[in-house]
Amino acid sequence: MSETLLSSRNLAFELYEVLDAEGLAQRERFAEHNRETFDAALGTARSIAEKYFAPHNRKGDEHEPRYENGQAVLIPEVKPAVDAFLEAGFLNATRDFEAGGMQLPTLLSQACFAHFQAANVGSSAYPFLTMGAANLIESFGSEEQKQRFLQPMIDGRFFGTMALTEPHAGSSLSDIRTRAEPAGDGSYRIKGNKIFISGGDHSLAQNIVHMVLAKLPDAPPGVKGISLFVVPKFLVNADGSLGQRNDVLLAGLFHKMGYRGTTSTALNFGDNGECVGYLVGKPHAGLSYMFQMMNEARIGVGMGAVMLGYAGYLYSLEYARERPQGRLPDGKDPTSPQVAIIEHADVRRMLLTQKAYVEGAFDLGLYAARLFDDTTTLEDATGRQQAHELLDLLTPIVKSWPSEFCLKANELAIQILGGHGYTREYPVEQYYRDNRLNPIHEGTHGIQSLDLLGRKLAQNGGAGLKRLIRLMAETGARAQTHVSLDALRVPLEQLVARLQTVTLGLLEDLVSGKVTTTLANSALYLKAFGHAVIGWRWLEQAIRAEEGLARGEAADRDFYQGKLQAARYFLTWEVPGCQHELTLLEARDDTCLAMRDEWF
Amino acid sequence: MSETLLSSRNLAFELYEVLDAEGLAQRERFAEHNRETFDAALGTARSIAEKYFAPHNRKGDEHEPRYENGQAVLIPEVKPAVDAFLEAGFLNATRDFEAGGMQLPTLLSQACFAHFQAANVGSSAYPFLTMGAANLIESFGSEEQKQRFLQPMIDGRFFGTMALTEPHAGSSLSDIRTRAEPAGDGSYRIKGNKIFISGGDHSLAQNIVHMVLAKLPDAPPGVKGISLFVVPKFLVNADGSLGQRNDVLLAGLFHKMGYRGTTSTALNFGDNGECVGYLVGKPHAGLSYMFQMMNEARIGVGMGAVMLGYAGYLYSLEYARERPQGRLPDGKDPTSPQVAIIEHADVRRMLLTQKAYVEGAFDLGLYAARLFDDTTTLEDATGRQQAHELLDLLTPIVKSWPSEFCLKANELAIQILGGHGYTREYPVEQYYRDNRLNPIHEGTHGIQSLDLLGRKLAQNGGAGLKRLIRLMAETGARAQTHVSLDALRVPLEQLVARLQTVTLGLLEDLVSGKVTTTLANSALYLKAFGHAVIGWRWLEQAIRAEEGLARGEAADRDFYQGKLQAARYFLTWEVPGCQHELTLLEARDDTCLAMRDEWF
Repeated sequence: MSETLLSSRNLAFELYEVLDAEGLAQRERFAEHNRETFDAALGTARSIAEKYFAPHNRKGDEHEPRYENGQAVLIPEVKPAVDAFLEAGFLNATRDFEAGGMQLPTLLSQACFAHFQAANVGSSAYPFLTMGAANLIESFGSEEQKQRFLQPMIDGRFFGTMALTEPHAGSSLSDIRTRAEPAGDGSYRIKGNKIFISGGDHSLAQNIVHMVLAKLPDAPPGVKGISLFVVPKFLVNADGSLGQRNDVLLAGLFHKMGYRGTTSTALNFGDNGECVGYLVGKPHAGLSYMFQMMNEARIGVGMGAVMLGYAGYLYSLEYARERPQGRLPDGKDPTSPQVAIIEHADVRRMLLTQKAYVEGAFDLGLYAARLFDDTTTLEDATGRQQAHELLDLLTPIVKSWPSEFCLKANELAIQILGGHGYTREYPVEQYYRDNRLNPIHEGTHGIQSLDLLGRKLAQNGGAGLKRLIRLMAETGARAQTHVSLDALRVPLEQLVARLQTVTLGLLEDLVSGKVTTTLANSALYLKAFGHAVIGWRWLEQAIRAEEGLARGEAADRDFYQGKLQAARYFLTWEVPGCQHELTLLEARDDTCLAMRDEWF
Repeated sequence: MSETLLSSRNLAFELYEVLDAEGLAQRERFAEHNRETFDAALGTARSIAEKYFAPHNRKGDEHEPRYENGQAVLIPEVKPAVDAFLEAGFLNATRDFEAGGMQLPTLLSQACFAHFQAANVGSSAYPFLTMGAANLIESFGSEEQKQRFLQPMIDGRFFGTMALTEPHAGSSLSDIRTRAEPAGDGSYRIKGNKIFISGGDHSLAQNIVHMVLAKLPDAPPGVKGISLFVVPKFLVNADGSLGQRNDVLLAGLFHKMGYRGTTSTALNFGDNGECVGYLVGKPHAGLSYMFQMMNEARIGVGMGAVMLGYAGYLYSLEYARERPQGRLPDGKDPTSPQVAIIEHADVRRMLLTQKAYVEGAFDLGLYAARLFDDTTTLEDATGRQQAHELLDLLTPIVKSWPSEFCLKANELAIQILGGHGYTREYPVEQYYRDNRLNPIHEGTHGIQSLDLLGRKLAQNGGAGLKRLIRLMAETGARAQTHVSLDALRVPLEQLVARLQTVTLGLLEDLVSGKVTTTLANSALYLKAFGHAVIGWRWLEQAIRAEEGLARGEAADRDFYQGKLQAARYFLTWEVPGCQHELTLLEARDDTCLAMRDEWF
């Protein structure tokens, strides 16, 4: 049977040949695990995703959540799906055994979750958001908050959301207006309006725990005055039973182009002055809490983009193998049978491009997940610190690169299906619509580019960047032992060498106060940096493929040849093209910056 | 009041400063016309588009045509819109005065029609298809066919379609199976199934005239055996009155991602063996007829893509001017007011990119329309022939370039609106969905690339290509008189010089029989060639802008500065990047061609 979510051979390649998942199982925290337990978890994820999530993916799109009597009503298929997800323990995949978790590495948790994202990104968002909210409370909440709100989330009885955006403050969180007044009893009264809150209402769980950014009366202006609050839909009594409905009103639903299975809500907090919230951690530290947990969320968003690309790639591959159309340029005899369209060079180009994008981004997403594991389970503090620095640096790429290029993959999948791909009778157009959200939410593409160039590069004295360059050089050195990889290695080395020079120049400009001009072309930098990172990951994959070929398992020959060809595509068709971005960056080109409002 | 369809200043620039529409009015055929009559027609188009087409654009998307009792039912707003269009004479804009037309140049007709495409591409498709069908009969039909079918189309009583695609034959028309058997009375009996027939059923007109490709019993195999037939929905009696319903069955509707206002149908011809059709022109010559009229249709499709891009650009520009969000990198004081997002360099980049794409493609589309006028109204036969050759060469670019890059513009428009852009409360997501059809219909992107590289370049001994190179050189020479344009001119000249070398090499390879390898990278060639063409058109626009600045009309300064900046963007940010495509083409890179089915 053909695979529709992701290639299990490729997943095994990533886990066991590239990212050394078995090495993780040597660490104390994961000592109970081994390749079998990993594969068992993956198998369960796949079967639940196929059985409960995939079948209603189209229905969730066609019947988006409705607003009825102040509530958001979802199609009935969502609840059994998330129940099966909870039942199998995926919500707590990384949590301690004794807390009811599976104590899996984040690498495996992300790999499991990828199946749900590929099957139905809309429905999988509900548990995804709950995991994010739960992790926030786990990291920064009080013992009482953990008992009252986290434990029911772990138990699957409460779900969660992140409530950041306001009508006048999306990217600019500095300007949020939601207020929190001390009520005298240790709790707060929240007042304000939030929009685009995913999963902001539903009846999948007994309660919904909103993680709300708001400002205290004595808050300093800007981001340094943002605090984080737990605001439940229903109050929770001391004994854990549900109390009265909190003053959180579902003001309306947004109607999106895609990702329709996930309800997007406008929520009014405290219209009647009675919205109870609880401060998480210290006052005015809310944004830093959010950022600390955002690494995991942004890997998740990036992986979501990857998996939409992946599902579209696999579907268009299958279609291209089965759809006869036309003849090859050198065999135009009209009485000869038509060939499958995969035989056409341009269709093969579109498939190979998709493969290079989705498998390159898939590798990076899992690599980032493994780095996350290093930040928590490496024995030496230096190693943990290094992993942290590198992950911080890579996060804007992990989030933005798939959002751009796996969306492009979806565009190509539609093209391969032609007129059929444009109809709602086939799934690829929905993947394309769904994926268009990813460059917007969890920090827009523009925000990611500023985060990379304006913040992450120089963080910790550029430690993350230095480590990345070192790792790239190591990969290059290993690649040198395979002469066949020279043509792939050299373009990457050329790009990286020049990128280093350009980066140093830009950082110097930033230090010397040329902030506006330096950041103006952050989009160019994001593109070149991202391609260097994905190019590095492809060179790494190519080395592993050469090693696999050298082992000589006949059954895997085709798989490894495909890896080498996709690596060749990315490193010779895509990577050298970024020299042009570097030329513009070197020149400090001001074409866009110099454009004026009145000239448009 | 801000303009939502297109910039009338830019349209005037194109018509009167770049493309010399007034020069056309000097020609005998257009002697009754002048700038005032042109502007009157444009004004009428704009006001009908704004009044009748734009208001139901979203409704047409939300309420796509329904299948009821064997008929396609549209929302009621479509008929008054197309009626107003017909009433104003736009269906016959280019037709002779004495045939009831406006005898306008095609340049003006396209410029008028652009307003309807920007306002509502779905509803404007019905008259668009009717114009195409009418032109086919006008060019190749018998006198009787003209009287029976063309005249009622001119009168607006009959509408038309093009019925080419079949379930197993989309791009490969060679393989169509629809048959036409002589009935003995001069007519034929048609039997076969067609899919994706736009406008294939509706009740906007008394009758629908399908232009159907089918094969006669004695047809040679392949494309040389395709004939063209008129197949009306209702038979037409000798006196012009409607006869009985023909054996054409609406088998079903396709449900698309966008472009939903245009019904896409599956039609069964001759299920009961009684489908009457009439041969147009000679047997087996149908495809050449289709191709001869396709220039105009492909300009129309290209312009449709442009106008969707244009509408999205204008909307996002307006939004960016009004939406406050964040502060500039060097002014982070959180107590200062937020700035309009157009102040952010990356937003300006996205707006400038859109401007460069849509105004570059808009210029090319109108330039092509003007070439079409030259093919019919230039006095000397050589001039007409030259125009024909150049238009033939440019047609794949006119069709494909906007389909790719104005879609990209729509993607950027969504990004500028952020979360709002992703909702159906704003129009930009619909433009994006609508525009995704354009790289597919009227010859896919891949087909256009093969048409360019495998056919058009070498046609007539490369006469079109030579003429294009000469025109580009002329533009370059004129640009040299403006030192300020050097930085724009040089990258184009560098690209074009190398493109010429690469082209010669590829053509030599084709001649020497290396067909498969040469055509394998046609997508790269299409990109580089297309960017050279649009770059040339931008340099032309930049010269006109410099001339405008030199005239010194103060009111126009900003407009011309904007033109120069968009030209600078395209020629320095986009054009040099295509050197990479040429490198791959020069190397005869076989990365995609060498990929094998079993390696995926």
